[in-house]
Amino acid sequence: MAQQERAKRTRQVILEAAGIVFDECGYEAATISQILARADVTRGALYFHFSSKEDLARGVLDMAVTTEGVLPQQFKLQELADTSLLLAHRMPREPLLRAALRLSVDQRARRMFGTKWPEWITVGAGLLAEAKARGELLAHVDPYETSRFLVGAWTGVQLVAEAVPQDDSLVHEVSLMYQMLLPNIAVPAVLARLDVAPDRPLRLCEAAARPEKGGDAGTTGN
Amino acid sequence: MAQQERAKRTRQVILEAAGIVFDECGYEAATISQILARADVTRGALYFHFSSKEDLARGVLDMAVTTEGVLPQQFKLQELADTSLLLAHRMPREPLLRAALRLSVDQRARRMFGTKWPEWITVGAGLLAEAKARGELLAHVDPYETSRFLVGAWTGVQLVAEAVPQDDSLVHEVSLMYQMLLPNIAVPAVLARLDVAPDRPLRLCEAAARPEKGGDAGTTGN
Repeated sequence: MAQQERAKRTRQVILEAAGIVFDECGYEAATISQILARADVTRGALYFHFSSKEDLARGVLDMAVTTEGVLPQQFKLQELADTSLLLAHRMPREPLLRAALRLSVDQRARRMFGTKWPEWITVGAGLLAEAKARGELLAHVDPYETSRFLVGAWTGVQLVAEAVPQDDSLVHEVSLMYQMLLPNIAVPAVLARLDVAPDRPLRLCEAAARPEKGGDAGTTGN
Repeated sequence: MAQQERAKRTRQVILEAAGIVFDECGYEAATISQILARADVTRGALYFHFSSKEDLARGVLDMAVTTEGVLPQQFKLQELADTSLLLAHRMPREPLLRAALRLSVDQRARRMFGTKWPEWITVGAGLLAEAKARGELLAHVDPYETSRFLVGAWTGVQLVAEAVPQDDSLVHEVSLMYQMLLPNIAVPAVLARLDVAPDRPLRLCEAAARPEKGGDAGTTGN
């Protein structure tokens, strides 16, 4: 492994350890020593990549705006839903994403680092603007306002799911959210061809793992 | 003023002071001394009503599930929207409500005290069940799932509005949320008669202050 590759990997290991510790203890209570123990790296290695706990928090937040696993689709609205569904699928599996959310809802951490919500709103508004240009949206839909609402709703649904657990997973709840919202966003001909089923992210992950079949995750619109 | 009435008022003054301090500093950093200074009451008076900071936090949370200002309406869906809109109207004005929300999103405080989200979900699901029985809802609407989503979405919209401020007030954003959701909840004949305009809570407050006119806040459905 080249030295640069090794350094990149160490950085990732440290960030993931920081994510686990921030997620479990919250930013205030977390210590560099806990993160070191979790990452199993030397203090020197950690300080080579990150100058402080603040710097680690910024690193964790920077990892949070991710469209990993989202594949090009016939409809931009499908890509938007896929982005939300995949995040819901990954959140319970990835402490780093949970830590970033926790840093955003923690008022004190938020004052120090801000949140990634503006970036998320921009991602969603961009997809919605493209969807609008392609005629996928009902006439009244405002890309920015709708994206802002989706980011807020997604965040709150995640918080309530965590605090008031039920049998269904987060991805079920985000699926339900899209079922409730899309009829007032998409034109009917597009609506009928969108797939926001709870198992959609799993199918996307499987499709991504089968390069020979490309991006087809069984969407009727593909 | 009767002694009982005075005690009740002191309790309220202390809770409001606790709300201000929790809202400003967060639960962890807040101290009884700060709350005493803010309430301008003796330590004895505070400990007569509340045994500890934990007890104060529970008192603050207990005040948070409030339908104050919601008046009987022709449609139960209107009462549901009024509940959300009034809370959005009151939140920026009442530190106690903000503190309760902050205690709910703070993971550490949440582990200690739980949240009031289950109670809010029950309030909404009750109104939606009544609305369903009266034929106000589209056939597919599940009162519990819809209420759970509304509570999550409201909470997240508030968080994003606080973190990423824009010119419009929180009540504008909650109004927009209902505009986006109601077409997929209400039957058209009811939808056309609902009022979720951003100035609705202000009109409700004015109507409540004019007892001779009763609960009429200019709803077309009244």
